[in-house]
Amino acid sequence: MHPAIEDVTVEGILHALSDPVRLRIFTEIAISACSQTCTSFSNVGERTIPKSTLSQHFKALREAGLIRSERRGTEMQNSSRCAEIDKRFPGLLPAIASAVKLQQSTKKRSRG
Amino acid sequence: MHPAIEDVTVEGILHALSDPVRLRIFTEIAISACSQTCTSFSNVGERTIPKSTLSQHFKALREAGLIRSERRGTEMQNSSRCAEIDKRFPGLLPAIASAVKLQQSTKKRSRG
Repeated sequence: MHPAIEDVTVEGILHALSDPVRLRIFTEIAISACSQTCTSFSNVGERTIPKSTLSQHFKALREAGLIRSERRGTEMQNSSRCAEIDKRFPGLLPAIASAVKLQQSTKKRSRG
Repeated sequence: MHPAIEDVTVEGILHALSDPVRLRIFTEIAISACSQTCTSFSNVGERTIPKSTLSQHFKALREAGLIRSERRGTEMQNSSRCAEIDKRFPGLLPAIASAVKLQQSTKKRSRG
């Protein structure tokens, strides 16, 4: 279900995060201290995402090695694997995160 | 044909570079001081890539804002837009490049 950290690839990470919804989901998981349940993301951005689409996104993030999903009772709890990835590819995720932040602040400025 | 640098997005960059062939092509263009022609990439990696597939990859890189293609005589010359992108998203491309280098060195070690 979860790839070993040695099998995580740069291409896999880039592909998983190249989808705006997945990028947003991952960002939310990564900045959240405690793990997150799938349903808390159904309002990602401004539109509602069907549960099946959401499951696909979580699967893609999991397969890229970006998150770890664990069943707790009836819900799946997701946590980021940032620490492991940062050990394998130091600085990659922080660089993507700050580019996203910059992009968001530019968008806000051009909207306002 | 080429997006304005303000229209270049993180997601677009990540998507374009999430394909191993495109990642390799872009890396080659970025490390090359002079611009490169398309055909010099037809042996990217270990397999030969059909010209039509190669054109698609160049189109994707161009549309993501990663390269600039200019016709010179009968050939297309490609150059990276690293400098512009590094101004818009400082550190993003260097972080991806060093992750790719790390990944390649790990692969070589596990092969040898």
